[in-house]
Order: sequence, then C-alpha cells, then structure tokens
Amino acid sequence: MRSLARICALLPGLLVAVTACSERSQQETAAEQMERAMDLDPAQLREAIEAVNAQAMEALRAGDAASYLALYTDDATILPPGAAMAQGLDAVREYWLASFAEGGFTLNLNTVSVDGAGQFAYEIGTWSMPIGEGESSVVEQGKYLAVWKRGADGTWKLHADIWNTSAPAM
Amino acid sequence: MRSLARICALLPGLLVAVTACSERSQQETAAEQMERAMDLDPAQLREAIEAVNAQAMEALRAGDAASYLALYTDDATILPPGAAMAQGLDAVREYWLASFAEGGFTLNLNTVSVDGAGQFAYEIGTWSMPIGEGESSVVEQGKYLAVWKRGADGTWKLHADIWNTSAPAM
Repeated sequence: MRSLARICALLPGLLVAVTACSERSQQETAAEQMERAMDLDPAQLREAIEAVNAQAMEALRAGDAASYLALYTDDATILPPGAAMAQGLDAVREYWLASFAEGGFTLNLNTVSVDGAGQFAYEIGTWSMPIGEGESSVVEQGKYLAVWKRGADGTWKLHADIWNTSAPAM
Repeated sequence: MRSLARICALLPGLLVAVTACSERSQQETAAEQMERAMDLDPAQLREAIEAVNAQAMEALRAGDAASYLALYTDDATILPPGAAMAQGLDAVREYWLASFAEGGFTLNLNTVSVDGAGQFAYEIGTWSMPIGEGESSVVEQGKYLAVWKRGADGTWKLHADIWNTSAPAM
C-alpha cells in the first residue's frame, strides 16, 4: 500500500515532465512555422511568381484586361515611366485599359531574382517587347522591380510594379 | 495525516497546471516576438527609412560617394533608366562614381509609403531634381521603388533601387 502511494505520488511528477516536453515541442513547432513563414523558400517563391508572370504574359498577349488586372492586389500601385504613379486597383485599371486600347501585345518577362519575407516578396527582372514588324521592327528592352504580396489564400499578387527602359535616352 | 497525503498528491497536479500555463505564456511570447519581427511597425519603419534618405540626399548634394555608397547592401542592385541594371556593390559604385563625376547634385526624395516584413521593407516614393539655373532651369520629376534590407545590427540599407521619370516621353 505504501509503495502504491509512492508510485501515485510520483505519477503527477512524470506528467509534469511529459507535459513540459510536449509543450516545448509544440512551442518549437510554432516558432519553426513562423520562421518558415518568414523566410520564404526561394525555389518555391520563384516558381510561384514565374507562374503568375506566365499568366500575365498570356493575358497581355490576348488583350484580356480582366485576367491581367486580377493579378494585382486591390491596393496595388504601378509606377509607369512617362506617367504619374497609379495608386489602387481603379487607377491601375485605368492605366492598363488605355494600354489595351489597341489590343494585346507581346511582353516578355524574365525573372532575374526573387526574395522576401512573410507576406511580401520582391522580384527583379528584365523585359523585352517587340514593336512593329518586318525590317522596321525593334525590340525595346528594360528592367523592372515588382513587390508581390501573398493573400490569405496563399496566392501571390502584384502589389507594386515599376519599370524603365535600358536604352540610353536620345 | 490522510489530508496531508491528499494535499501532497494534489500538489504535483497543481504544478502541472502552473507549468502548462507558464509554458503557454512563453510560447505566446515567442510567437508574439516573431510576429512583431515579421510585421514591422509602419511609423518606426518610415522614420528609419526617411532618416537614411536624409543621409542619401546630403551625400548626393555633397558629392560624397563613399557616404552614399555606404547606404547600400553589399549585394544591392540598382536599375537606372537608360542603362543596364548594376548588380553588386562594385557595379553600383561604378554607376554612381560616373554620376558624381561632375560633383554633387540636388535630389529630393519624398517617401509616399513604406511596408514590409522581417528583414525586408519596400518604399514607394517620388523624386525631383532641379537642373540648370535661372530662366532655363527645369525640375525633373519622377518616382521610385526601393527594397530595403535590415542588417544584423538593425540598420536598414538600400538593397534594390529603381526609378523613372514621370514626364511623357518626347
């Protein structure tokens, strides 16, 4: 009877240890999850962003404004050369609808690097755009910096976008 | 004696509860710290970035290339209009030393918005640069997008920087 009492007295102590270990394990997992959320996996991030860029190129080529604009966050900002910045999706839409006025066009986007943390990522890239046809055709070339924001559903959307040309000014 | 034994038997149970509460509290604090690290305080972030921009404007005005270049990360990228992107501090230095060849100049930087997570932040801004003097003087105007990276010492440095002019192309 006395030894049973001792075992019973010891049991809760064991439970303390087991509970503490279990809590610690959960704690590390939570921290690890946060860490994972913060330090984005570069390969996965690049893959996700290149997939959206592929959608963007297709929408631009098709002159499909609705599909293209769906790639932006509601509070996106674009900073196009030769124009004022457009803040918010309504202003972004206005800019692109004017650009789509003559139909779709070819814009090649080439991701150079991506990085980020938490719900934000940024992308450095180059772009090229063939203009005209035949002997008078030229290929404009430039570069861009895009800030991407991940929504609650895990989808990356364009949040800020600026570009310029690389050809020296005339 | 029997009631003392019951109290002794209950004590470890209480310890379990206390330990669990304590562990939970530590866990939340760790998560909160990660959350704080991830979601940057917008006001503090803006203050920090505007302080570096003030140093940048002063260094540009003075033509002090060393002080200006110290504001970039070692692996910074700049994407200037009318030129190829410059990747890495050596290439960034080469670009700016050419720009400083005729001495310092006035560049006004105006932060429009900042946001970010973890060690990354981005800034949307406008710039203006008076060129020439007297009646023939003009003020060039444009906008920029900068990605900032926070070092281990807490200092924010320019990590990617692109800008363009807002005047319509001739």
